[in-house]
Amino acid sequence: MPRMRAVQVKNANGPFELVEREIPIPAPGQVLIKVQACGVCHSDALTKLGVFPGIAYPRVPGHEVVGVIDKVGERVPNWKPGQRVGVGWHGGHCGHCPSCRRGDFITCANGQIPGITYDGGYADYMIAPFEALAAIPDDLQAAEAAPLLCAGITTYNALRNSGIRAGDTVAVLGIGGLGHLGVQFAAKMGCRTVAIARGADKRPLAHKLGAHHYFDSTTQDAAAELNKLGGARVILSTVTNSQAMSAVLGGLAVDGKMIVVGASPDPIEVSPFLLIGGRRAIQGWPSGTSADSEDTLAFSALANIRPMIETMPLERAAEAYERMMSGAARFRMVITTG
Amino acid sequence: MPRMRAVQVKNANGPFELVEREIPIPAPGQVLIKVQACGVCHSDALTKLGVFPGIAYPRVPGHEVVGVIDKVGERVPNWKPGQRVGVGWHGGHCGHCPSCRRGDFITCANGQIPGITYDGGYADYMIAPFEALAAIPDDLQAAEAAPLLCAGITTYNALRNSGIRAGDTVAVLGIGGLGHLGVQFAAKMGCRTVAIARGADKRPLAHKLGAHHYFDSTTQDAAAELNKLGGARVILSTVTNSQAMSAVLGGLAVDGKMIVVGASPDPIEVSPFLLIGGRRAIQGWPSGTSADSEDTLAFSALANIRPMIETMPLERAAEAYERMMSGAARFRMVITTG
Amino acid sequence: MPRMRAVQVKNANGPFELVEREIPIPAPGQVLIKVQACGVCHSDALTKLGVFPGIAYPRVPGHEVVGVIDKVGERVPNWKPGQRVGVGWHGGHCGHCPSCRRGDFITCANGQIPGITYDGGYADYMIAPFEALAAIPDDLQAAEAAPLLCAGITTYNALRNSGIRAGDTVAVLGIGGLGHLGVQFAAKMGCRTVAIARGADKRPLAHKLGAHHYFDSTTQDAAAELNKLGGARVILSTVTNSQAMSAVLGGLAVDGKMIVVGASPDPIEVSPFLLIGGRRAIQGWPSGTSADSEDTLAFSALANIRPMIETMPLERAAEAYERMMSGAARFRMVITTG
Amino acid sequence: MPRMRAVQVKNANGPFELVEREIPIPAPGQVLIKVQACGVCHSDALTKLGVFPGIAYPRVPGHEVVGVIDKVGERVPNWKPGQRVGVGWHGGHCGHCPSCRRGDFITCANGQIPGITYDGGYADYMIAPFEALAAIPDDLQAAEAAPLLCAGITTYNALRNSGIRAGDTVAVLGIGGLGHLGVQFAAKMGCRTVAIARGADKRPLAHKLGAHHYFDSTTQDAAAELNKLGGARVILSTVTNSQAMSAVLGGLAVDGKMIVVGASPDPIEVSPFLLIGGRRAIQGWPSGTSADSEDTLAFSALANIRPMIETMPLERAAEAYERMMSGAARFRMVITTG
Repeated sequence: MPRMRAVQVKNANGPFELVEREIPIPAPGQVLIKVQACGVCHSDALTKLGVFPGIAYPRVPGHEVVGVIDKVGERVPNWKPGQRVGVGWHGGHCGHCPSCRRGDFITCANGQIPGITYDGGYADYMIAPFEALAAIPDDLQAAEAAPLLCAGITTYNALRNSGIRAGDTVAVLGIGGLGHLGVQFAAKMGCRTVAIARGADKRPLAHKLGAHHYFDSTTQDAAAELNKLGGARVILSTVTNSQAMSAVLGGLAVDGKMIVVGASPDPIEVSPFLLIGGRRAIQGWPSGTSADSEDTLAFSALANIRPMIETMPLERAAEAYERMMSGAARFRMVITTG
Repeated sequence: MPRMRAVQVKNANGPFELVEREIPIPAPGQVLIKVQACGVCHSDALTKLGVFPGIAYPRVPGHEVVGVIDKVGERVPNWKPGQRVGVGWHGGHCGHCPSCRRGDFITCANGQIPGITYDGGYADYMIAPFEALAAIPDDLQAAEAAPLLCAGITTYNALRNSGIRAGDTVAVLGIGGLGHLGVQFAAKMGCRTVAIARGADKRPLAHKLGAHHYFDSTTQDAAAELNKLGGARVILSTVTNSQAMSAVLGGLAVDGKMIVVGASPDPIEVSPFLLIGGRRAIQGWPSGTSADSEDTLAFSALANIRPMIETMPLERAAEAYERMMSGAARFRMVITTG
Repeated sequence: MPRMRAVQVKNANGPFELVEREIPIPAPGQVLIKVQACGVCHSDALTKLGVFPGIAYPRVPGHEVVGVIDKVGERVPNWKPGQRVGVGWHGGHCGHCPSCRRGDFITCANGQIPGITYDGGYADYMIAPFEALAAIPDDLQAAEAAPLLCAGITTYNALRNSGIRAGDTVAVLGIGGLGHLGVQFAAKMGCRTVAIARGADKRPLAHKLGAHHYFDSTTQDAAAELNKLGGARVILSTVTNSQAMSAVLGGLAVDGKMIVVGASPDPIEVSPFLLIGGRRAIQGWPSGTSADSEDTLAFSALANIRPMIETMPLERAAEAYERMMSGAARFRMVITTG
Repeated sequence: MPRMRAVQVKNANGPFELVEREIPIPAPGQVLIKVQACGVCHSDALTKLGVFPGIAYPRVPGHEVVGVIDKVGERVPNWKPGQRVGVGWHGGHCGHCPSCRRGDFITCANGQIPGITYDGGYADYMIAPFEALAAIPDDLQAAEAAPLLCAGITTYNALRNSGIRAGDTVAVLGIGGLGHLGVQFAAKMGCRTVAIARGADKRPLAHKLGAHHYFDSTTQDAAAELNKLGGARVILSTVTNSQAMSAVLGGLAVDGKMIVVGASPDPIEVSPFLLIGGRRAIQGWPSGTSADSEDTLAFSALANIRPMIETMPLERAAEAYERMMSGAARFRMVITTG
């Protein structure tokens, strides 16, 4: 049997192990992907630390996967070996739960996640159900496309479905793996784009990414600064600090909305008066489907948006993960294979 | 000079006084209304207690006013003496601030409020700017129409603009002055209507108002009960207890939204995970304009919706206010004159 | 092999034949339904006349089917023998075309239709793919539920997704199989409901169905009458006469929209000035999915809405069809079996 | 009395005359503008030909006016002499008709239009009501800003309110005064932008304006070409030929919408089947308010969008008008003064 390399987590909070395994065979409805690149995401900690409910071990992490279809199982319509494909957070859906019956696959009651409910992309090969596949445009390199399948889709999809119109003021809270993409997306959507982060050193980067304004939340009252601009129609919150979210809510314009894509266990505190006085809102947004991934990739190609990445080969996956978690990465780590 | 009676608050937290005053003369853009009925609202406490920023005394409270136009000032288009009109919380707008230029009068930066920024309806006569006037349909009695101009418009307007579709599940949190109207509105909008309140004794009333389900939050986990129904598309929160709001947020369906129309100084605590997982939202809603009032009255007449009221004559205004504030009223007190 | 009765069309424009056939066996993904009732729809003419592109013969018509699951094929999640189910116009989708990947099953490029792409409900038994099944509430009788699966869902789904808000003026053009349901739906959604049809004799019926106004288009200018009411926010056009549609477009309010659910080969003529001056629109709407059917049935049960039907046993299917096509039916013919 | 030059139309279909007049004095609610530039619009023909109902003569045309406030009448809040301002098609509203009461000034029943209901910008000075004023950003030159106040606002406002999301396919039908701006707006909103016009010679220009695709409707079936791209989410129709509109409707994607901003007396012919099958729509859009003008100007400055203009001094206004009407202008004529 042909064999492949994979980096697996042995058990909850256990070490990463580079192991050899048999290359799996796709069951009906599945394809085998020869992996070219896999992004490292903060959510990989759910696998590493074992905090995802019911996760089984050993488990190969990775849900920002780009590769080429190697084999196609039975009952897989439309996909062929040789096609470039990606798989993101949304790793499959059941097709028959209440959400799926309404076409809302992303809230599927039985949704699958690569690297969590089945083995992900820290490997030479990976199995995925066909409904999780997104076609990759030719003009995107594998390592660049990978982070667009989770960090990219989350911010693009949240923004494009937020009701913003070109010309509106959009603030992006946090410039990191998600935020540095959010700023680019907002700017290329024609929005007056504000970046909010900690520290003066991110100012040049923010402007380079397309931000028209930058507020350093360590020295500036970002809510007050937003109000000087007339308030934000949308604040896209990419941070995982609920207090930081609460602190900028006051910068929402009338009818403004904060969209939360990053989460912490702490609650966000929201003033009823602030909400009522200006019909303001706070809403969450959870990634998107494989079709949304294709839209994300297509828009990134159209508008020339790319993630900032650092790459490492598969055997250095543990190091890539540590660099991502420590906040040292500028801004996404991508594991490359082959 | 002809004279009239008025009930004024002498100073912040001062007593109500029944006084005699000259009947005022409408300036350009204003009308003089002979008051027939004026609802008592919890927000009258802003006048009584003096907590509204910059309020001047003495001040006549009252922003749920129904009467007949007595005199019309210069530059008042379209209104004539003899017309039945109402004035609600939205007591006028400037027409030139950023909100007004966009036609969003309710968030006018210079918005006026009867009973707060000028003398309100606890009186025989009252002055109002013409843009605050709502025509009253013939088939609504004055005392019944009055609470519709604040408690009614707030719940009707919040619900009709919430994105609900007939057949959706809508929960109304709290059965009081606002909630007992919210339940009626939701039911007559064709929604599967859930009432949530404290105590088993409100169950029969809830069903009589049109609720299909009633959850007693002192003995039932309302969020869990909502989920058994598939979750609420909208929870209209009419209570002023932020903890009570947080407690039912978990009962929102995917894409569900809590709409907050009652406020307390305490923040609402919202879990980021709850928001993100189901694209859930929490939003505030602030009453409506005089045109919205007309819609509220028209819908109430069409669908046969009426507030439950107790009436008292003007000289018992202080008693009416106390009964409202103590929670004894079932469910709105209305002061009648003439 | 057990056998059953079916009424088939032998060839394009050929006769209806009552035949005996073997009861079919559900393939994977399919169920066998024991039919209780099947509505007759004008669209059955597509089968009878052979005008549907590529239709194969002999073919059993019928896409308003209510029955009980008799057998369940492999890979059918969630459905069990004994459950009451319905199948409407939307008879299945492929799950992998561009529309399906976006969750929009009703515009599936490979969509199936009972009675057209496979044998329908003019029979004792029928096969359907599981994704086409809608659960039937206990409190709806089979013959009453049947027309809700096409005439009902089309009007309910068009209206609830039209952006109307309770209190808005909604006109229903035509009182027939679709229109007599549209009037009921609009009224129970809390809309000021206007029925427009030909002849004075439909006036009492219109009011009985819940219409607040009735305009006889043979003697009244319906557009002008609508404008006296302030114009219609939505005109639901259920007729199949394009000239009749064009004639009432002038009755749309600012931001008003005509929603077309009935079609003729003739084009609708629309004045650009009429559209531009008031941001008016005309839009089409095509039925809905099995989940939408469940919503339709649930709302009908909640709001006590029922189609007006005449029933005939299976052996009189040809007569039922003729009565429907001739316009004599008041308002839907339903074939009953067993 | 100080005097000024004005170009007036003497009577319906009469000649343009360069005359001297007294400089008017602003009444309450009005300002006097010293005109710097005034665009020539096809709608100026309404004045020249006398086809606008009730137009009085002599009349000075011009509703794309940029200048500096010279004098301010009584009761004009917020505006001061020396401010740069513009006035577009929306030249004032009454504030009390049903539309105005709902904040929808653009459909005001008593709306005013510069150059039609009062004297417009083909002059050294012009009077306008304050609600018609839009502030002009410093970085826009007068002659460039002028066409944005009618051709610009119409296309920008129609597109931003169309529901498009960045990445969607948008087609602009016609490359002329409106279309050449529509293409730029669509591209800078992040849309995959298609330009459709007559002739191969406009292809290079279309791409220069930002179009990703160009279809020559004299040699290509634009509807078929759009479908090869997946169909258009929005077709912005800027032509005045109803047959040309009907011809491309088939290129709308599912849920696609044609937005009509140019009008001819001929009706647009729309197939009911086309509408129904894909929930397609056709809608009109009528310009915008002075606040919308400010948004248009701000977005144009932000995204570096400019009209292509040719300028002529006031004394050559007749020539500028002829050049515009004959279709020779590339693409807007602007009259400059002083």
